[in-house]
Amino acid sequence: MYRTHNCGQLNISNVGQKTTLSGWVQRSRDLGGMTFIDLRDRYGITQLTFNMETNAELCEKARELGREFVIKISGNVVERSNKNKNIPTGEIEIIVENLEVLNASKTPPFTIEEHTDGGEELRMKYRYLDLRRNVVKENIIFRHKLSIEIRNYLNNLDFLEIETPILIKSTPEGARDFIVPSRMNPGQFYALPQSPQTFKQLLMVSGFDKYFQIVRCFRDEDLRADRQPEFTQIDCEMSFVEQEDILQTFEGMTKHLFKKVKNIELKDFPRMPYSEAMRLYGSDKPDIRFGMCFKDVTEVVKGKDFKIFDDAQSILGIVAPQSATYTRKQVDQLTDFVRRPQVGASGMVYIRYNEDGSLKSSVDKFYSEDDLKKIAEKMEAQPGDLMLLLSGDTEKTQKALCELRLEMGNRLELRPADKFAPLWVVDFPLLEWDEETERFYAKHHPFTAPKAEDFELMKTNPGEVRANAYDLVINGSEIGGGSIRISDKDLQNDNFELLGFTAEEAHQQFGFLLDAFEYGAPPHGGIAFGFDRLCAVMSGVESIRDFIAFPKNNHGRDVMIDAPSAVAQEQLDELNINTKEITE
Amino acid sequence: MYRTHNCGQLNISNVGQKTTLSGWVQRSRDLGGMTFIDLRDRYGITQLTFNMETNAELCEKARELGREFVIKISGNVVERSNKNKNIPTGEIEIIVENLEVLNASKTPPFTIEEHTDGGEELRMKYRYLDLRRNVVKENIIFRHKLSIEIRNYLNNLDFLEIETPILIKSTPEGARDFIVPSRMNPGQFYALPQSPQTFKQLLMVSGFDKYFQIVRCFRDEDLRADRQPEFTQIDCEMSFVEQEDILQTFEGMTKHLFKKVKNIELKDFPRMPYSEAMRLYGSDKPDIRFGMCFKDVTEVVKGKDFKIFDDAQSILGIVAPQSATYTRKQVDQLTDFVRRPQVGASGMVYIRYNEDGSLKSSVDKFYSEDDLKKIAEKMEAQPGDLMLLLSGDTEKTQKALCELRLEMGNRLELRPADKFAPLWVVDFPLLEWDEETERFYAKHHPFTAPKAEDFELMKTNPGEVRANAYDLVINGSEIGGGSIRISDKDLQNDNFELLGFTAEEAHQQFGFLLDAFEYGAPPHGGIAFGFDRLCAVMSGVESIRDFIAFPKNNHGRDVMIDAPSAVAQEQLDELNINTKEITE
Repeated sequence: MYRTHNCGQLNISNVGQKTTLSGWVQRSRDLGGMTFIDLRDRYGITQLTFNMETNAELCEKARELGREFVIKISGNVVERSNKNKNIPTGEIEIIVENLEVLNASKTPPFTIEEHTDGGEELRMKYRYLDLRRNVVKENIIFRHKLSIEIRNYLNNLDFLEIETPILIKSTPEGARDFIVPSRMNPGQFYALPQSPQTFKQLLMVSGFDKYFQIVRCFRDEDLRADRQPEFTQIDCEMSFVEQEDILQTFEGMTKHLFKKVKNIELKDFPRMPYSEAMRLYGSDKPDIRFGMCFKDVTEVVKGKDFKIFDDAQSILGIVAPQSATYTRKQVDQLTDFVRRPQVGASGMVYIRYNEDGSLKSSVDKFYSEDDLKKIAEKMEAQPGDLMLLLSGDTEKTQKALCELRLEMGNRLELRPADKFAPLWVVDFPLLEWDEETERFYAKHHPFTAPKAEDFELMKTNPGEVRANAYDLVINGSEIGGGSIRISDKDLQNDNFELLGFTAEEAHQQFGFLLDAFEYGAPPHGGIAFGFDRLCAVMSGVESIRDFIAFPKNNHGRDVMIDAPSAVAQEQLDELNINTKEITE
Repeated sequence: MYRTHNCGQLNISNVGQKTTLSGWVQRSRDLGGMTFIDLRDRYGITQLTFNMETNAELCEKARELGREFVIKISGNVVERSNKNKNIPTGEIEIIVENLEVLNASKTPPFTIEEHTDGGEELRMKYRYLDLRRNVVKENIIFRHKLSIEIRNYLNNLDFLEIETPILIKSTPEGARDFIVPSRMNPGQFYALPQSPQTFKQLLMVSGFDKYFQIVRCFRDEDLRADRQPEFTQIDCEMSFVEQEDILQTFEGMTKHLFKKVKNIELKDFPRMPYSEAMRLYGSDKPDIRFGMCFKDVTEVVKGKDFKIFDDAQSILGIVAPQSATYTRKQVDQLTDFVRRPQVGASGMVYIRYNEDGSLKSSVDKFYSEDDLKKIAEKMEAQPGDLMLLLSGDTEKTQKALCELRLEMGNRLELRPADKFAPLWVVDFPLLEWDEETERFYAKHHPFTAPKAEDFELMKTNPGEVRANAYDLVINGSEIGGGSIRISDKDLQNDNFELLGFTAEEAHQQFGFLLDAFEYGAPPHGGIAFGFDRLCAVMSGVESIRDFIAFPKNNHGRDVMIDAPSAVAQEQLDELNINTKEITE
C-alpha cells in the first residue's frame, strides 16, 4: 500500500498514529543533526523529519533525495515544536522510519513554486511540471468543481446532458471550420463543430425540452492571446420558453455557481438594451463595476471653430472622478494610450475641473472658461474631476473611448478582481452590415429569431430589426450568449435570404434543419457559456489558458507533444489527399 | 407562458385546477360528439377533450390537427370516467378552453410509436423524429442519468474531471487515426485521440492522483455493425495505487450505478485469469450468466481411427443440459451454425446421452457406447444432456466453441436480459504475437506494466509475460479495461523495443512521455469504460446505436446531415491540401 493518508490530511488529532505517505520532495533542509523534507501531493504538504542521531543511515538516504523525487515513507505523527499556522498540517510532522524512493527526478527546468522562475515557453513545453504548481493546480480543481455544480444544478432542473457528434459537416457561415478527411468516403470531409447549434435545435424538435452539454468546440481562426482553437462551451437549449424563462434559468445557475464555489451572493442581474450599452459604454460587454459612463457633448462643443470637433460625427467623453490633479505626464500617457493602433483615436482633449472651480483644458484656444463650464455641466462633472473627450466617427469613437474608460478604471482601481458585476445585454440587432463585402451578417447566428414586433422591418429596413438575443456579461467579459431561435421554415428561409444565401445554398447546408422544422418544431431558445472564460472571470483573471490542462500556444501548437506534425505518406494515401508543395 | 405543467405531471390531485400545456399531438380520436387528443411531451401523455355540444368551433379546430402538430392548450383538469391505470396521468383529462397551433407538421415518414413502421434507414435520416419515440428517448435519458451518477460517485471519491485536448498528434501504434490538416502549420496535421491515454498519464506525473473524464474518442476503422467512428469513454487514472485499488474502486462504481439507476444490488465480482477464461470459455470476455464450460476431451477421444480427431490439436466440447432430445433438424442447424465463416468450424460431432442411459453419436462408426460413456464421464454429462464437440487448431476451436456455447445459451434461454453477471478478467498477457507481421503487439497498449514477477521473462520469453491488466466483463461484453502503467523510462523503452519501435521512433512519438518519466513519475494505473457499451449492457440490449443521439451508419456517414461531404476548393487551398483524383 502506497499511503494511508494524503499529504494534506494529518493534523494535531493524528499525533501518536502511524502513517504511510507518498508524494514528491518539495524542499529539503539539512540542519546538521536533522534533515527536514516537505513532502507534497495534490492535497498539501507534510513535514518529514530524519534524525542523524537516532537513524544515521536513513538520514543519509534522505539527504540524497533531490527536488521532485517521488518517495514513500512511513513513520509516526508527532507534534511540532515549531508550528506553521499557515497550513492545515502545520502543527505536526512525521518521524520517518522507512523511506523508499519510488522514482527519481532530474532537476526540473524551473522551480515548482507559487512564483516560478520558468518563462512561458518553458512552462508550456513542460506543462506536466507547471501543473504541479499550486496556482495552476488550483485552477484545474476550480474548473472541476464548477463543472460538477453546473451539471447538478441543471440536472435538478430536469435538463438532460446529451452528447452531439464531433464529426459533422462543414458549413461556411461563421468562423473557419477544421475539417477531417474521410477515408471511407474519398474526397469528402467531416468538419469539427464550432458549436452544437443545429444539433441542439434538432433535439428540441425531438422533444427533449431541456438540453445541456459541456462540450468541446473548434474554430480555425488566427489566434489572439486569449483564444484557443479548441474550447469548451456550456451549451444549453430549452423548448416552450420565452426569452424571460431563459434569462431566469441561467441567472439562477450563475448565482448558484458563485454561491457554491465562491460563497458570493449575487444580487439580481441588471439588464441593458444593446443600444444603451453602446451609447453609455461603447461596448456590448460593458464592465459595470464602475460608472464613468459616456457623455455625448456633440451639441455643446460644436461651432467654436475647433475644426476637429466641428468635423466630427460625435464628440464623446468620460468624467474621471477626482483626477483633476493628473499631471501633464499622466495626461500624455493617456493620449499615447488612445493613439495606439488597437485603440485607434487620433488624439484626446482633456478638461481639468479644478477643486477651486476653475477649468483648464487642452483646447483653451477655442473654448472660454464659460464654454468649458457648459461642457462640465453637460457631463455632470464636479470640481476635482478630469474630463476626457474623444471625437470622430461615432462607432470608432465609442470603441476608443470604451478602451480609455477601462484604462481609467484600471488606473483608478475601480475594477477590483474580487468584485463581480453581472449584466444582461438584451435586444441585440439581428443583422450586422459589412461594408467590405456589402452584405448582412448574422449578429448572433443565422438561427436567431427577430422580435415579433420587428417582423415588418425585415422587409423594409433589415438593419434595424432587433433580435431576441442576449449576452451575459460579467466585469466586461462576455461569458454567455444566446437567443430565441426561429422555429418556422419560412421565417428561417427569409432570414437565410437576408444573409445572402441562395435557396439552394440554404438547402444544401441546412436542409436537414429546414426539413425538421416541417415536422412540428416547438418554440425554443438557448444560451451557450464559454466555460474556459467563465472559469477565468470567476477567478478574476484575464487569461483562460491556465484553466485548460493542456492549452495550445498562439500558433495553435501543443509544444509539449509537438502537435500538429507531419504524418506518414501512407496515411495521406489512405485518405486520398496530398499536401501541396509549400511555396513561400 | 407556454405551459404551467408538463404532459406527465397532472393527476387526480389536480382535478379542478386550470392548466396550460404544450406538446405534440400523438393521437386524435373523433367520436362524433367528442374529440379526444393525446398530447405528448418528454414527460408523458395527457388526454385532451373537446365537446361538439359545448364548444363546436374549438372542437372543429381540434379535428383539423394532424399527428405531430405542436399545440398549446389551456383548460380545466377533470376526472376521467374511463380511467387508464397504465399511465400516471390516466385518471384525468383536460376540458380544453383555448387551443393554439404553435407549429404544424407534415405527416411523419413513420409512426412515432413504441413499435414503428419505419425502417432503419428512414429512421436514421429522420433521427430527430425517431428520438421522439419513447423507447429511443428513454435510452437517451438513461444515458444522462448514468453520466450524472458516474460523475457524482467519482467526485465524492475526490476524482477530478480534467479535459484533455481533442487536437493532438498522430501516433501510428494502435488503430488508425483521424487526422486534421493544420492551416497555420502547412503540411502538418493534428490527430483526433483514440483515447486520452498519454495525457492522463501526464496528469499523474503532474500529481493529479485521481483523474476521470467522460470523453469522446475516435478511431478510423472499418465499421462493424456495432462500432462508431466516434465513441465515448469513461476514462480514469489513479496514482499511488496497485491493481487491487483500481479493481475495488471501479467495482464500487459499477455496483453504485446498478443500484442507483436500476435498483439492482450486485454481489462482489468474481475474478478469472485470462488463461482460465480462454480454457473454460474460449473467450477473454465470457458470459458467465450460465455454465456450460469447455471440456477438453483430446486425450479421451484420440486413437480410435477417427482421423479428424486424431489429427486435431484439440478436441473440445460443451454439455448442453437437457438437450438430448434435440431433433436431427436442430442438430443440423447447429452444424450449419458452426460452419458459418464468422464461426469457422469445419464440422461438429454430437453425442446424445439419452435419459435411459444409452448414448448415440454422429461418430458411432468409430466410438463404441463404452467409448462414448468415457467421453461423457470426462465431460461430466448426465443422462438427458447433449454433448457437442469441435476439433482442430486449439485457438480456432476455442473461438468456434465459444460461439456455439453462446448460441446454445440463447437457445436454452440461459442469457436473460435482466440478469447481470459481472466478471473481472485479470492477468492478461503483455504481448500478442502476430504471425503475419512476425512481431509482437501490445495486448492492451504499449504503456501497460508487466507483472514484477515476470520482469525476467521479458528477456527470455516475452510471449509469456503477464501484465497487470484487467477487463471488466458483464454478460459477455467487455465494458471496461485497464492496467497498471509503466512509470519508469527504462522499462518503457524496453517495452517499446519488444514492440519493434526503434529508439528514434519511440522518441519521436512518445518523447514527451518518456521525458516526463524522468521528472518524478508516480506509480499509476487506470481503466477506461466504453460508455456507449455500458449503457447498452445495463439496458440488456446488443446495439450501442440507440444510446447515441446522432449515430453514424456502417459507412461512417451521418445520413441525417449528410456528412461527410465535399468542401469548397478554397477550404482545401487554405489548408494546403488537395484531394486525389479518385480512380476505381
